[in-house]
Amino acid sequence: MAIYNKICILGIGLIGASILRGIREKPGIASHSVAYDIAPDVVTRARALGLADLYPPDIAASVRDADCVVICAPVSHIAETARIALPHMKPGATLTDVGSTRQSVIADIAPYLREDISYIPAHPMAGTEFSGPEAGFAALFENRWCLVTPTSQAKKPDVDRLVRFWQALGAKTRMMEASEHDRICAIVSYLPHLIAFTICDTADKMSETYRTAVLDYAASGFKDFTRIAGSDPVMWRDIFLSNKDAILETLAHFQDDVEELARAIRDDDEARIIDAIERGRRIRKSLVDNGQAQDPAHPTPRPPK
Amino acid sequence: MAIYNKICILGIGLIGASILRGIREKPGIASHSVAYDIAPDVVTRARALGLADLYPPDIAASVRDADCVVICAPVSHIAETARIALPHMKPGATLTDVGSTRQSVIADIAPYLREDISYIPAHPMAGTEFSGPEAGFAALFENRWCLVTPTSQAKKPDVDRLVRFWQALGAKTRMMEASEHDRICAIVSYLPHLIAFTICDTADKMSETYRTAVLDYAASGFKDFTRIAGSDPVMWRDIFLSNKDAILETLAHFQDDVEELARAIRDDDEARIIDAIERGRRIRKSLVDNGQAQDPAHPTPRPPK
Repeated sequence: MAIYNKICILGIGLIGASILRGIREKPGIASHSVAYDIAPDVVTRARALGLADLYPPDIAASVRDADCVVICAPVSHIAETARIALPHMKPGATLTDVGSTRQSVIADIAPYLREDISYIPAHPMAGTEFSGPEAGFAALFENRWCLVTPTSQAKKPDVDRLVRFWQALGAKTRMMEASEHDRICAIVSYLPHLIAFTICDTADKMSETYRTAVLDYAASGFKDFTRIAGSDPVMWRDIFLSNKDAILETLAHFQDDVEELARAIRDDDEARIIDAIERGRRIRKSLVDNGQAQDPAHPTPRPPK
Repeated sequence: MAIYNKICILGIGLIGASILRGIREKPGIASHSVAYDIAPDVVTRARALGLADLYPPDIAASVRDADCVVICAPVSHIAETARIALPHMKPGATLTDVGSTRQSVIADIAPYLREDISYIPAHPMAGTEFSGPEAGFAALFENRWCLVTPTSQAKKPDVDRLVRFWQALGAKTRMMEASEHDRICAIVSYLPHLIAFTICDTADKMSETYRTAVLDYAASGFKDFTRIAGSDPVMWRDIFLSNKDAILETLAHFQDDVEELARAIRDDDEARIIDAIERGRRIRKSLVDNGQAQDPAHPTPRPPK
């Protein structure tokens, strides 16, 4: 008996396609899958990849009879997609979205919610710098966190079922408040992305000589910052705008810390420079101790034993 | 016939040990190697690793009869090491250092230079986040750039010989002015390190709840920024201080760009957010096209073909 009989994926990008592949490859998650995307060519590509069982022509037809509807659209499209989907969903079904900002999305969806549908946002903290249905793969969620932020109207058994769904896809789940979710993501994800985009932007604005040099000598540290700078611009514009307060607050802390280190350099204050670097190393060391860094897929060359 | 008959390495950290291992493993670089370090325990460890042929007790004895003396000390110790070494070097020998800042080191060494010794700084742009003699490995320089910035008193045949030395170690070499070197390193290396230290510092200062979250959810982007934050604090303090002007100037550009993106977020200026992200993606794309990113040793998971 699968966790859901029929599941509906709205939006077939990296995340939607990875969920569909997960359902295909791991037994017991869903008996039937339907998928829809606002872009007809994305549907064509998903069909060619064999991602879902059915590709109904519109949202209304797609969500009909689904036990669970997963909105995998960019953050700015989630509320509108929910508005169209909700009236056609069957009583007792679950609505979820994988958006990476929570408070603003929950507020935007609130007016359309129905008593008989549990709305349970769940954000899988997984991704690559690639997008589109071709980028999806079943292992994307394995050992990654999925942050579940149920709204007060969601029924407990429905929450438990969605948790089982994400665990079956390989994710570790954690429940939290929407506000906590947004502040955590600001530091672990939004700020690094904002900085990565900016440092690449700074390099791009330099004279031709130095831009060429950046390309030649990127391995010296710059390259580490560029992977996530390849991410989808529209997705990130939406994340930045929909989570403005948390990101601007976290950015202000970062800017203060940059300014403090810059001042220490300007003033030749050796002790304060060392302090700042040592504080930074603590987190790094904890990550290594936790086994989060030194990812075996990303080894740093070391001498042979 | 080796490039140098006798080579002397002063400072047996990651770089010094990697040069020594390179000499051991690749024929024709140097017939004899001697190594010295100011820290007796480092010498003991180097000896246990079998890195060099001889470990004389002081700098004077180490540099005697050497055809090439390579100072691999932290930037702040290079000039002092050169001051002690130069009077004991044999006429016609080459003095080089691997320091990662150039203009300030060249200025500091200038008073001690001798007419009959070519001083040719050469900065291998290679490193890992590990330090000490155990961290060294012969392949460290393979396919990495070594930026050679000869001073005007260096003799052309000596420059050519040092270039052959670095190429024999596997490096690609490029000649440039010291000032150009420092500005290039500011953007490709110093700024990314400064930012990496700072973002880790910002995270470290957060409340316990959020610090724990950073450790749990680091894979969402934060982790990419932490590898280089593990680097040696003293080394980086020296680099920041000895190359103050270039780093502060580059940092100011970066800070302006961060502020511009923050303002666009604050003002809901969608077009300017997208612009900034797209500009950043251009450099990333060029890196991928150049084959510099998507390093085969650091694959991002992609769906099976």
